[in-house]
Amino acid sequence: MTTATTARTGLWLIGARGSVATTTIAGRAALAAGLTPPTGMVTALPPFAGIGLPELDHVVVGGHDIVDVPLAKRAEQLVAGGVLPHGLPAAVAAELAAADEEIRQPGDDPAADIADFARRHGLHRTVVVNVASTETDPAISTGYATAAIEAGCSYVNFTPATGMRAPGLAERALAAGLPHAGRDGKTGQTLLRAALAPMFAQRALTVRSWSGTNLLGGGDGAALADPAAAAAKNAGKERVLADNLGAVPEGTVHIDNVPALGDWKTAWDHVAFEGFLGARMVLQTIWEGCDSALAAPLVLDLTRLVARAHAAGLAGPVPGLGFFFKDPDAGPAALGDQYQELLGLARTLRAAP
Amino acid sequence: MTTATTARTGLWLIGARGSVATTTIAGRAALAAGLTPPTGMVTALPPFAGIGLPELDHVVVGGHDIVDVPLAKRAEQLVAGGVLPHGLPAAVAAELAAADEEIRQPGDDPAADIADFARRHGLHRTVVVNVASTETDPAISTGYATAAIEAGCSYVNFTPATGMRAPGLAERALAAGLPHAGRDGKTGQTLLRAALAPMFAQRALTVRSWSGTNLLGGGDGAALADPAAAAAKNAGKERVLADNLGAVPEGTVHIDNVPALGDWKTAWDHVAFEGFLGARMVLQTIWEGCDSALAAPLVLDLTRLVARAHAAGLAGPVPGLGFFFKDPDAGPAALGDQYQELLGLARTLRAAP
Amino acid sequence: MTTATTARTGLWLIGARGSVATTTIAGRAALAAGLTPPTGMVTALPPFAGIGLPELDHVVVGGHDIVDVPLAKRAEQLVAGGVLPHGLPAAVAAELAAADEEIRQPGDDPAADIADFARRHGLHRTVVVNVASTETDPAISTGYATAAIEAGCSYVNFTPATGMRAPGLAERALAAGLPHAGRDGKTGQTLLRAALAPMFAQRALTVRSWSGTNLLGGGDGAALADPAAAAAKNAGKERVLADNLGAVPEGTVHIDNVPALGDWKTAWDHVAFEGFLGARMVLQTIWEGCDSALAAPLVLDLTRLVARAHAAGLAGPVPGLGFFFKDPDAGPAALGDQYQELLGLARTLRAAP
Amino acid sequence: MTTATTARTGLWLIGARGSVATTTIAGRAALAAGLTPPTGMVTALPPFAGIGLPELDHVVVGGHDIVDVPLAKRAEQLVAGGVLPHGLPAAVAAELAAADEEIRQPGDDPAADIADFARRHGLHRTVVVNVASTETDPAISTGYATAAIEAGCSYVNFTPATGMRAPGLAERALAAGLPHAGRDGKTGQTLLRAALAPMFAQRALTVRSWSGTNLLGGGDGAALADPAAAAAKNAGKERVLADNLGAVPEGTVHIDNVPALGDWKTAWDHVAFEGFLGARMVLQTIWEGCDSALAAPLVLDLTRLVARAHAAGLAGPVPGLGFFFKDPDAGPAALGDQYQELLGLARTLRAAP
Repeated sequence: MTTATTARTGLWLIGARGSVATTTIAGRAALAAGLTPPTGMVTALPPFAGIGLPELDHVVVGGHDIVDVPLAKRAEQLVAGGVLPHGLPAAVAAELAAADEEIRQPGDDPAADIADFARRHGLHRTVVVNVASTETDPAISTGYATAAIEAGCSYVNFTPATGMRAPGLAERALAAGLPHAGRDGKTGQTLLRAALAPMFAQRALTVRSWSGTNLLGGGDGAALADPAAAAAKNAGKERVLADNLGAVPEGTVHIDNVPALGDWKTAWDHVAFEGFLGARMVLQTIWEGCDSALAAPLVLDLTRLVARAHAAGLAGPVPGLGFFFKDPDAGPAALGDQYQELLGLARTLRAAP
Repeated sequence: MTTATTARTGLWLIGARGSVATTTIAGRAALAAGLTPPTGMVTALPPFAGIGLPELDHVVVGGHDIVDVPLAKRAEQLVAGGVLPHGLPAAVAAELAAADEEIRQPGDDPAADIADFARRHGLHRTVVVNVASTETDPAISTGYATAAIEAGCSYVNFTPATGMRAPGLAERALAAGLPHAGRDGKTGQTLLRAALAPMFAQRALTVRSWSGTNLLGGGDGAALADPAAAAAKNAGKERVLADNLGAVPEGTVHIDNVPALGDWKTAWDHVAFEGFLGARMVLQTIWEGCDSALAAPLVLDLTRLVARAHAAGLAGPVPGLGFFFKDPDAGPAALGDQYQELLGLARTLRAAP
Repeated sequence: MTTATTARTGLWLIGARGSVATTTIAGRAALAAGLTPPTGMVTALPPFAGIGLPELDHVVVGGHDIVDVPLAKRAEQLVAGGVLPHGLPAAVAAELAAADEEIRQPGDDPAADIADFARRHGLHRTVVVNVASTETDPAISTGYATAAIEAGCSYVNFTPATGMRAPGLAERALAAGLPHAGRDGKTGQTLLRAALAPMFAQRALTVRSWSGTNLLGGGDGAALADPAAAAAKNAGKERVLADNLGAVPEGTVHIDNVPALGDWKTAWDHVAFEGFLGARMVLQTIWEGCDSALAAPLVLDLTRLVARAHAAGLAGPVPGLGFFFKDPDAGPAALGDQYQELLGLARTLRAAP
Repeated sequence: MTTATTARTGLWLIGARGSVATTTIAGRAALAAGLTPPTGMVTALPPFAGIGLPELDHVVVGGHDIVDVPLAKRAEQLVAGGVLPHGLPAAVAAELAAADEEIRQPGDDPAADIADFARRHGLHRTVVVNVASTETDPAISTGYATAAIEAGCSYVNFTPATGMRAPGLAERALAAGLPHAGRDGKTGQTLLRAALAPMFAQRALTVRSWSGTNLLGGGDGAALADPAAAAAKNAGKERVLADNLGAVPEGTVHIDNVPALGDWKTAWDHVAFEGFLGARMVLQTIWEGCDSALAAPLVLDLTRLVARAHAAGLAGPVPGLGFFFKDPDAGPAALGDQYQELLGLARTLRAAP
């Protein structure tokens, strides 16, 4: 990592030793070192060039986590699971060690940890991103959102947790001039649904049922085996259908913990729809993806965009970020329209100071 | 069919006894009689209300076909194949018989047939729509496109045939003040690809291969078993990927004639893509649809939109119709963007005389 | 239905107005009248010819049901749902009406109804077959099994209900010289699992997880939305895997009620398995079937086989019928081996008086 | 590799540097060293214990190949492709080097190479196994089969090549007292078809069409892009359906070369079948497998079984090996029945000297 003379940006991860965080940290280092192309990173696409986003080699990473497994070990686990390429942990060992030094056990005053991190590194701005495994205790996620505000940081809720939507918090963020974004990153089945549901609506085809089953192992699979956590996740999935189709069709979404699948996820969707003169038709999709690999570049995207929005003086929910979320703060529901809104944000940022 | 006092519109179908045409004719009658909701018809959606489109009970149907099986019999075949509901042929028997009377064997001067049809029915405008089975002789489709111009009619090419793209034809249409649209209706696998490919592009995911197999029986299956016909069809499918992804990925599209499937089609797509740090992921889709049921309402949509464009003074390729076609005359490649363009056309038509 | 001079056989259906029963009754009539080939009926295959099975035109049908919708109406509902062909209810109207006359509301003494039916029709033997929707009250299914014994009838449990496995019942059947068979007809996902699981075992491939989701509407979908009913059904499904693989792999089976699917069922299975040197592979299956159409011919098969077994003097669980059941009384677990056992039963019956 | 004092067996691979051969060689070494369990190896199942099969640490490997890339390098390529586990090439480096020493460029007298190999190693028996990429020149495969006979070796044809079926060869093998087996290893789609097709036949369900598409990269994908090679491969696939169903249903099998998939294969099958009263149903399967990982343990199985058959005095086609092949020399067509025949062979060998 170069010692940048330009402004530096902090990324503070809640759940900093989880799969998404570890992939984010290792991936940022690999990108900064030019070891890998920025596949999967939206802000690497041409429309986002020259709009003042912080470069990845100017991003410093820290975070909170309740576990203390070193990132190097976590990275090797992800190699074994096929998420990270062989050799990567060794190639970015120094960066993993540096990040390890900046990960704290959450204590009584998490805001102090964040503020201390920003001070010590002379960071212009820090974005707090929650990528912790889905928890069911709303107080925890509220606590982190509050800490971000208290530390003067913008906040991204990449999980289905309550986050900035707890009563009063959004108002405090706005008053403090802090931008935020959320909630629940759209990485797999819901991403696909946001691309497909508009097709049915625009073609005037009636969706009669939309059923889905997700199989996943890893930490997320175990966490979502908890019915309350699954319910939070499913609410976001349902919203995508409701907003795009105008009504929630029949059908259930299952999330099964299948440890044999490790960090990989298989999602099957079955859509029964009706066409002209009542013709009954079916679309099925099977998505075999790696959530951590899909989420990590979006975490970097959001860090860059929200930091830039902060610099540009935007406060409150950043418009145009619905493209990234299952349950966005505002904006259209169709993926294509959300991308257009994101391009609009890029134009805004390009014109901003 | 009511004897309308208002302006009446002609729909002249090339391939008027085929499955798509029969479904279109029976469906138009069912809709005009209020026997069925307009599922699958885009122009029945709210944004297209009040923009001056001809009502379906003011549309008169005729056409050319080389076969002479009565429409009533063709409709019963489609009932047996599950395309049309039981009872529908009987309920619209009068309309099928009326259309039968207006179907001609193509002779030396097809334009005369069309002009005679328009004259006898006192039609303000007639739209010629090619829904003939994919033929490999370009002269045939060119002949119909020419006939439309000679008869002063707008033209819609719903097939992969050359149509209005033969040398000099588009210029003649423009000179004659005639709008046209094409080509190759987007009803199944390509519709899906146009919805999904943008997702990969917008998320910066690298599509490594996109393979597909279509199984279909019926007349289309037999016609497409001809390699030249299949090649024409596949060119349109490839264009959707090339335009959305910026490059044609690896992969082949197969079209198999499977008579056991009758008028129903199953399309399997396999997309291998790469994400962050080289993670290999796969999306598969299975589409089980009825092409005739998907195509027929779009034929009615295009008839309404092109007739209205004609009335509004538009000539040449109608902008904003790429939403309907595999290989459109112009415009964006992503389905969502094409829908936005179509909404733009609706606004244009709303403002037009 | 001919007035047979030869021995006649009774078929007494528990749940006689349900989808499976109605399909069975209409199908038996269609087969007896030569209106349809015996597709899906195992005992119509060559190895079962000449072994003394009762002919279908010598089978008389009655049964119990708590609902009183006429069979003709139920048959029309199945036509609307695509289960029965158009025209069939009319073609077998007389037989439906005759069966209607023989369906009783279950009262205090169901055995009396069965005995009365047998006596009035001069039936040599009657087979009681339970095809009632999955109920959770074990007493009900036990009551019918007891009634069969009291009426001197053999008994087939086509459902996941307790049936003849309630304490003491099998002993009573044996003492009365009555054959019986069960339980839970193997018609869709479990049929497929019984065909596929042996492949993994015989090839020494390690199945790591086997997950499945069933989507179905109709009465069965609603009944199985009850968790207790689903649990009973799933026990049978799990047994197929446990018996074939030697252990129950990871994975859950979901049964979703999706009314939009009507009488049709879609079952998705995902099997993660491991091969040489730890290679991770996946098999997925999608089964789109109609349970009533799959079950009805098996009900006729079992009626014929169990009646013949009764005539041949077999009492207690009939060996060789595991081919038909999810949770058989005895025998091998692999579908191919079960078929070999069934052929063995055919040889036994051929040699029997 | 231990210096065994007991009888040693030779395995001579045609195509010894291909993916299947490299996986076989590396896998044999890993198994002999106790580094991996024998997953995927049929002869490691209990019924094959104690029947006199050669142990893997007594098997010596050599072969012919026209390429000269060292096995260590080929093994690393397979690691990169996800076929072999990381670390395996290093763990068995000595065995790979030893096998490298025994691989010859095919010259004028391949039999001399084989005989020399056997003499130098003091091998009791050597099995020649053809695992070369599908070639279209029948003379080549005939040449190797002839060489095996001339060298006094048994022969296994794991490819779709003509092999021992060239005129006169089988007679020569029989006269020389040599057993042989073939042809075309059943590892993926055809394995699945052999498990599934009997289900339809035994349940009297009419298969109307069976369509399939195979996507594969690697050497096999490129080789099978040649239509003649694909035709040879497909003949075996069709035979499985014809023999199990009594007729070849509608449908085509495609084999597409998709380099992006590397050594992994995805096979989609679509089976349209008809049940009771004409109900139309569909089964689809998606197989994601690694051909090399599926084939290699079978190569070891066949080596062990054919060497033992040779020792037991069996000559000509070895009965009971149809379980391993698409197009076997004899025996039943259903996978389950083939397994029973294989168990019969095991009993024969157990009783043999």
